[in-house]
Amino acid sequence: MTFATTILTLYPEMFPGPLGASIAGRALREGRWALEAMQIRDFATDKHRSVDDTPAGGGAGMVMRADVIAAALDSVAGARPVLAMTPRGTPLTQARVRALAAGPGVTILCGRFEGIDERLFEARQIEQVSVGDYILSGGEMAALTLLDACIRLLPGVMGAASSGDDESFETGLLEYPQYTRPVEWEGRTIPEVLRSGDHARIAAWRKQQAEVDTRSRRPDLWERHEDARVQSPSGARRQNRNE
Amino acid sequence: MTFATTILTLYPEMFPGPLGASIAGRALREGRWALEAMQIRDFATDKHRSVDDTPAGGGAGMVMRADVIAAALDSVAGARPVLAMTPRGTPLTQARVRALAAGPGVTILCGRFEGIDERLFEARQIEQVSVGDYILSGGEMAALTLLDACIRLLPGVMGAASSGDDESFETGLLEYPQYTRPVEWEGRTIPEVLRSGDHARIAAWRKQQAEVDTRSRRPDLWERHEDARVQSPSGARRQNRNE
Repeated sequence: MTFATTILTLYPEMFPGPLGASIAGRALREGRWALEAMQIRDFATDKHRSVDDTPAGGGAGMVMRADVIAAALDSVAGARPVLAMTPRGTPLTQARVRALAAGPGVTILCGRFEGIDERLFEARQIEQVSVGDYILSGGEMAALTLLDACIRLLPGVMGAASSGDDESFETGLLEYPQYTRPVEWEGRTIPEVLRSGDHARIAAWRKQQAEVDTRSRRPDLWERHEDARVQSPSGARRQNRNE
Repeated sequence: MTFATTILTLYPEMFPGPLGASIAGRALREGRWALEAMQIRDFATDKHRSVDDTPAGGGAGMVMRADVIAAALDSVAGARPVLAMTPRGTPLTQARVRALAAGPGVTILCGRFEGIDERLFEARQIEQVSVGDYILSGGEMAALTLLDACIRLLPGVMGAASSGDDESFETGLLEYPQYTRPVEWEGRTIPEVLRSGDHARIAAWRKQQAEVDTRSRRPDLWERHEDARVQSPSGARRQNRNE
């Protein structure tokens, strides 16, 4: 089955962009995913083909019009999740990426300027998604990022070599540190345990490293991981540290 | 001054990619930033030009070699921050983006496969940065995302129209919702306050909306915002909820 993607954007020339190279590019040529980049401006109704107007209430910049974007969205066929990339959205997680990749595809709306008229989100079923707590010049780079995360999980794309099970976030922890040859480099040696051939010891060491690194680098992830561990034995007790 | 960027990658053809269009593309042509995409493979020393090897201790996939990447990194001239895009890194924030954009440029190392030999990070001064809690096919898309966030902040790139001061994260809150013409669309009207012309009322309403939305959508951001507010009056008291 082909993972169908439609991008609504003012810059269709940005797609597939970097997704035309490497494993995503090969998967595109193999038909594992399909891309349609739609020009929002084609749905403008006035002679100037305007897609934006000044913010109601004043302020800098321009806001994208609900009527024009709704017309573009409504023209997309097929029952797929509709996402809008916006810093006001829900932070993207690997769990959401996995769920999207297991579905029929996505329609992605790329905002520009100061954002999109809020009434669009009230009138249409649109999932607002943020790739991180920083501001991009538009939703296009966020859409490419989301697609890259999804495409690598499609059947046949990564191959058997890289299952992804050990990766960061799949276990709720950061991934353990990796080493490879040469055994010695600039006086630094690969940790002895990794050269021991003792698979149980290696697994224990990696688990411990993942825990240590998560704890020191991402206390937020570590707290969630610990909360989940406390909850899972009983399944009933709920410990919410934010209460 | 030109913001100088050097990208170390196995896929130099991905750059500038989407950054060649729109405002980043114009800024590139105007010389506001410069791009050098370096092929890591050119620094391999064996006849197969290998850049990776199997993980010490076993496991799926391949790990990028510290010696080859160090050689590539060491060839880059100029005193600029060196960043590696990796899910094990510190989450990127708008504050970090602002600081980077105010500097001379960046050198960005794009990991692929299962990651980079950890000894590289012990031996060189490299800032490990994550664009979000999801897994990409490589660091390239993350590098493009980081660059996009930086470039729009460079002097002369966005123009005076969009100062960015009200935007999400700049105030520690999500941005307030935006509206524009038409005044009525599908039976939905722009909130009356935004059509009142009363600037004080509009500012108060926007502040309240930003707070309401941050609270409901991003309790994590809201908590940090509230902590900062409690701390700032005295400047001495430190309230750490994670203690």
